[in-house]
Amino acid sequence: MKINGHAWRTIWPETEGLDVEIIDQTRLPHRFEVLRLRNLEQVAYAIKTMQVRGAPLIGATAAYGIAVAIKENPGDACLAQAAASLVETRPTAVNLRWAVERMTAVLKPLEPSRRCEAAWHEAAAICDEDVALNHGIGQHGMELIRQCAHQHKRPINILTHCNAGWLATVDWGTALAPIYAAFDAGIPLHVWVDETRPRNQGASLTAWELGQHGVPHTVIADNAGGHLMQHGQVDMVIVGADRVTRTGDVCNKIGTYLKALAAYDNGVPFYAAVPSPTIDWNMSDGLREIPIEERSSDEVAWMQGRLPNGDIASVNVLPEGSPAANPAFDVTPARLVTGIITERGVAAPAELAGLFGKPA
Amino acid sequence: MKINGHAWRTIWPETEGLDVEIIDQTRLPHRFEVLRLRNLEQVAYAIKTMQVRGAPLIGATAAYGIAVAIKENPGDACLAQAAASLVETRPTAVNLRWAVERMTAVLKPLEPSRRCEAAWHEAAAICDEDVALNHGIGQHGMELIRQCAHQHKRPINILTHCNAGWLATVDWGTALAPIYAAFDAGIPLHVWVDETRPRNQGASLTAWELGQHGVPHTVIADNAGGHLMQHGQVDMVIVGADRVTRTGDVCNKIGTYLKALAAYDNGVPFYAAVPSPTIDWNMSDGLREIPIEERSSDEVAWMQGRLPNGDIASVNVLPEGSPAANPAFDVTPARLVTGIITERGVAAPAELAGLFGKPA
Repeated sequence: MKINGHAWRTIWPETEGLDVEIIDQTRLPHRFEVLRLRNLEQVAYAIKTMQVRGAPLIGATAAYGIAVAIKENPGDACLAQAAASLVETRPTAVNLRWAVERMTAVLKPLEPSRRCEAAWHEAAAICDEDVALNHGIGQHGMELIRQCAHQHKRPINILTHCNAGWLATVDWGTALAPIYAAFDAGIPLHVWVDETRPRNQGASLTAWELGQHGVPHTVIADNAGGHLMQHGQVDMVIVGADRVTRTGDVCNKIGTYLKALAAYDNGVPFYAAVPSPTIDWNMSDGLREIPIEERSSDEVAWMQGRLPNGDIASVNVLPEGSPAANPAFDVTPARLVTGIITERGVAAPAELAGLFGKPA
Repeated sequence: MKINGHAWRTIWPETEGLDVEIIDQTRLPHRFEVLRLRNLEQVAYAIKTMQVRGAPLIGATAAYGIAVAIKENPGDACLAQAAASLVETRPTAVNLRWAVERMTAVLKPLEPSRRCEAAWHEAAAICDEDVALNHGIGQHGMELIRQCAHQHKRPINILTHCNAGWLATVDWGTALAPIYAAFDAGIPLHVWVDETRPRNQGASLTAWELGQHGVPHTVIADNAGGHLMQHGQVDMVIVGADRVTRTGDVCNKIGTYLKALAAYDNGVPFYAAVPSPTIDWNMSDGLREIPIEERSSDEVAWMQGRLPNGDIASVNVLPEGSPAANPAFDVTPARLVTGIITERGVAAPAELAGLFGKPA
């Protein structure tokens, strides 16, 4: 997607040094900075500290992380160690494990001397495939928005939580792909952007993305969506996911479940948009089986923003001595999910396995 | 309640100057400062900017506002103008209108020369009555916590939203009154404190209050409560309210509805604790009838906290150019409410009118 009219992806190889470059998402929306990751430690740090985030981008970054890790020593031990340490960085995103396993499966059978080139090739393929998958999600999801616009004959209000835009993927995004596709096709729409505490990915990343692309949007506190739905101001909810079970349970950023409950209570369709690598075909009970990452309480305590003079600063919003808890994800049961938007089409949870030719 | 061992109320007359003094709640939890309000404009400003907030405290402040306003001119026109401008400061809280109407009803029949003394007397009576009502709420609510503790034989986890503690009232609080009463009675408990964006009254005021009193508590993002309920980590929800209809619809801080949905979905009892002046006997459909205040988008954009050096600062968390919306309250339909805790006892929504001898 474009920043100031120039096309970017979120990650790209810097092949002269066999390094990888990323946009540092912890500085957005206040600063736009590119970071060069030169070794496994820097890649793992980037994932852990959310310089890159979003399930598909975490997967792509981990793939490049393998390539970066083996550039000086492509032996079996180094490959295995890189895979293990990358998988540990974030427990919830299924794409991370998927990408690492795919890289390992491609590289392990090769002579070590051939692994380095193959790793860069495979990581690039993962990125290109992500872009293609998201483009497909955009096309299928756009049809839902088009139908809604056709029915209501007015701009369609779409609520989204967290950031599942192009910054969460290699390009296009998942939840935002249908929105970009619809906007580019001239379908009138407006996006309610959940702030998404504690890390504010909605207010900082989604709002910034949409603004750069010119999409009409309004930021709201995470508390506000239910009220808007009660008053007919939301036509559909589209979120991304870090993992979707074969049964259609949706694990996404903490607070998604609350919006799904409100959507259900008000008859507002609730969609999760995911590429198929985000679907965990081994799981059927998201609430019991998906590990939920507990992140640092500092993310609740400290808020980053711009001071009136334009400097970036963090402020602590808690009383001294008050502890905080920070579960990072929750699981929305399939019973609250209208449909899963994938690169193959849109499926109700019960039809998801069938859409991919899997036994239900 | 106590601050550093010294007993305080949130508002008190400073009779030598015929002024009123308050704790400036916009500076908490970072600074503890007392403000002296010398005229109607200062009282209205204090209510509008939330230097005082919480439905019962807004009512008490408006009562003293009448007394302050007429100290130099107790004539009919001045009284009427004070009443009108105070009622306009916050549209949602029913106590505000209730207190102003009560003051007017007492003062208007009197000779202007007798109004000043009567106003201070009546405002003090409103405050003392608020304290007594909240003490009653505490006693009735404590029994719910005691029963729950008896059933589970472990510390009880109570989730609360926003601040309905002693800082929201003259003393004791509404939602927190049962918690203080239970804690003081030795019933083991722990409070999940919703941060309560955009103004963070939970993180800044509720956490501070509970910490000052020694009550175990943990601050969470507003997004986290549903996940905690899904995993059995919440035994009951107790919130305050700005208005409750005769039918038991609960209008409270934005986001309350989302927590009520999650409580209902997980079989967690959901209570609103209110003194009877918060009940609007003229309304039966909260969603259609209660005016919802839309506050400045600056409250979403700017977050106040402590810089690492201890200074207080505000940071803007939005991208430049992204708009924000800020509905301040929502309505939880009575069908999601287990009970209303009042000074007369606890009533299911359908029994509320009967508890107060009103026709259903």
